[in-house]
Amino acid sequence: MPPEGDESVNKDDLYQSRIDKVLEGMKKMKLDGLIVSDPKSIRYLTGIYNEPYERLFVLYLSADKNHIFFLNKLFNVDQKKIREVWTCDTDDVMKIMASNIAKNGLIGVDKVWPARFLIPLCELTPDAKFLLGSDCVDDARACKDAEEQRIMKEASRINDVCIERGAAFVREGVTEKEVAEYIEAQFKAEGASGTSFSTIVSFGKNAADPHHEPDDTVVKEGDCVLIDMGCVKDGYCSDMTRTFFYKTAPDKFTKIHDLVREANEKAEAIIRPGVLLCDIDAAARDHIAKAGYANYFTHRLGHFIGQTDHEQGDVSSSNNNPVKPGMIFSIEPGVYLPGEFGVRIEDLVLVTDTGCEVLNKVDKKWKILCK
Amino acid sequence: MPPEGDESVNKDDLYQSRIDKVLEGMKKMKLDGLIVSDPKSIRYLTGIYNEPYERLFVLYLSADKNHIFFLNKLFNVDQKKIREVWTCDTDDVMKIMASNIAKNGLIGVDKVWPARFLIPLCELTPDAKFLLGSDCVDDARACKDAEEQRIMKEASRINDVCIERGAAFVREGVTEKEVAEYIEAQFKAEGASGTSFSTIVSFGKNAADPHHEPDDTVVKEGDCVLIDMGCVKDGYCSDMTRTFFYKTAPDKFTKIHDLVREANEKAEAIIRPGVLLCDIDAAARDHIAKAGYANYFTHRLGHFIGQTDHEQGDVSSSNNNPVKPGMIFSIEPGVYLPGEFGVRIEDLVLVTDTGCEVLNKVDKKWKILCK
Repeated sequence: MPPEGDESVNKDDLYQSRIDKVLEGMKKMKLDGLIVSDPKSIRYLTGIYNEPYERLFVLYLSADKNHIFFLNKLFNVDQKKIREVWTCDTDDVMKIMASNIAKNGLIGVDKVWPARFLIPLCELTPDAKFLLGSDCVDDARACKDAEEQRIMKEASRINDVCIERGAAFVREGVTEKEVAEYIEAQFKAEGASGTSFSTIVSFGKNAADPHHEPDDTVVKEGDCVLIDMGCVKDGYCSDMTRTFFYKTAPDKFTKIHDLVREANEKAEAIIRPGVLLCDIDAAARDHIAKAGYANYFTHRLGHFIGQTDHEQGDVSSSNNNPVKPGMIFSIEPGVYLPGEFGVRIEDLVLVTDTGCEVLNKVDKKWKILCK
Repeated sequence: MPPEGDESVNKDDLYQSRIDKVLEGMKKMKLDGLIVSDPKSIRYLTGIYNEPYERLFVLYLSADKNHIFFLNKLFNVDQKKIREVWTCDTDDVMKIMASNIAKNGLIGVDKVWPARFLIPLCELTPDAKFLLGSDCVDDARACKDAEEQRIMKEASRINDVCIERGAAFVREGVTEKEVAEYIEAQFKAEGASGTSFSTIVSFGKNAADPHHEPDDTVVKEGDCVLIDMGCVKDGYCSDMTRTFFYKTAPDKFTKIHDLVREANEKAEAIIRPGVLLCDIDAAARDHIAKAGYANYFTHRLGHFIGQTDHEQGDVSSSNNNPVKPGMIFSIEPGVYLPGEFGVRIEDLVLVTDTGCEVLNKVDKKWKILCK
């Protein structure tokens, strides 16, 4: 197992460079201030993680660089870079916040900030204008820096190791739930802190539902075995799907498996900076459509990923944004035949200067388990 | 184990009576509409539970009773009582919502509703006035109806059973984590769906931190053994704390234990409709203060509880609201001596017409384990 952190990274410089990226985005939107409240965005920008529940926890970024941390005395936050305003539960917290921010400026608001804070702040600062501003942070978060890439490669390496163990665990009499639990135990053994979502294991016709939850279904000969799994390592997620067959592989299904794999590979082949996300979706979707299965590929091709399994941004027909270096997203075409079976093949890809690196190295061609 | 549901309850009548309570609250606030978005509030009012993630999921209650459910086609919602407006991810969802609500009315907003919806809705309906309105639902949720009381009594009965097993599991060499895991397994065995919060087990000086997380600390003679635990049964929570001693009980500590128990009992003794929540807090706090431990009772006396472990409302010096029949909250005085030990004694109480029923029946006097 590689070391937990890369000692050569100066953390202060790292966070400053991330804040600078957000300030650039604020400049484009002409924002005087930005209310950042998503705990994962705050961790991204400061390294500090805190779960505030119903209390105010805001990093207020100011265009003039006089940033402020709004904190509650019950939080355990220890930092020295940013000015702190501490409050307690008996304070009029929103009045204190209102007196500290740009009174008649244009203020960006985090998309997750709840009405319990936003409505009082609007009432207390009638001359300020509030608009959604989280794109400034989300666009920065979409392009992973070197430190994030290092961690996410490690999270995907663990996923690679554990899916092979999970596939090897499939045997006579085993249930979906047992395979899922086995995989989750492997994640822990490999040093992951948990799963990035509930592990999906689907046998046979259960795989026709892309979000099937593992149950007591027992594997039987000729079933497809779909495993969609991801772990969290040092706060970042992995996510991958492979589809196997148990004991025998019906011709009709292996042909569709080949088709889906080709769609996955065609999409990955065209990824490079400047390509539109909708065109990547089309590369996979058109290939599946040509074979007559358009109606059985029922979801978008992929989603962005980072500190959460689904971050802002997707690979879909409606996303006309171009790909940029450092982006990490999933490529996961699927075909689902109700009552019969389903196949999905998913990798994470990292956009490089000239193309992309597929973070999942496990073979994706179909394979028979327990032959 | 009692049956899962009480067949004699007509569910339609139940939900209608809850909606009527909220409409009364809206009338007092002169609201034309109320945006309910907390999934637990929606379950309370309709029986439907859905986890929307970043998608719009709103029950819009209208003063004229033309309520609307705003739903996404990816949700699995099946009901017939309320008009539905279905949208999909490619729709301009907020425009659709704006065209369906009171355009120049006074609209209450759920305190948890995120800016991603609220800001666009404000922009699209400039003649409407938005204000925080979730008290209408939260005040209704604070007073549990007969069906909720039935479920919460059962959740506390399970808690009673499992704490006795947890205490009996304490033995030479056992760690806090092992006791916590054992208790959580007992919850499952008794038919609970999970814990209402991470089980707290604290030995000796660890108990001086009210939020200590169980670790590999091994119990030793003379330690206090503080167990704070709760389960979820049919969507409702229990929560209770007892403090024991291991093998021997130092005099200094048993005296403080008696003091805290008396504080708990004094508070419970004065509970009846009309009494102020701050006066209940004072009844316990004054007793502890008189013995010289005021500075070691560092938190409020209690919190409301229901579908979540901490619901709106508390028993604290700053809550001047009167107690009403049907309210369920915790009474949990504690004394924490840093570096030495801690004791907390917590029950849930249900306010009745003439007093209160303590939902936890387990003895609360101190007791020596493994004597």
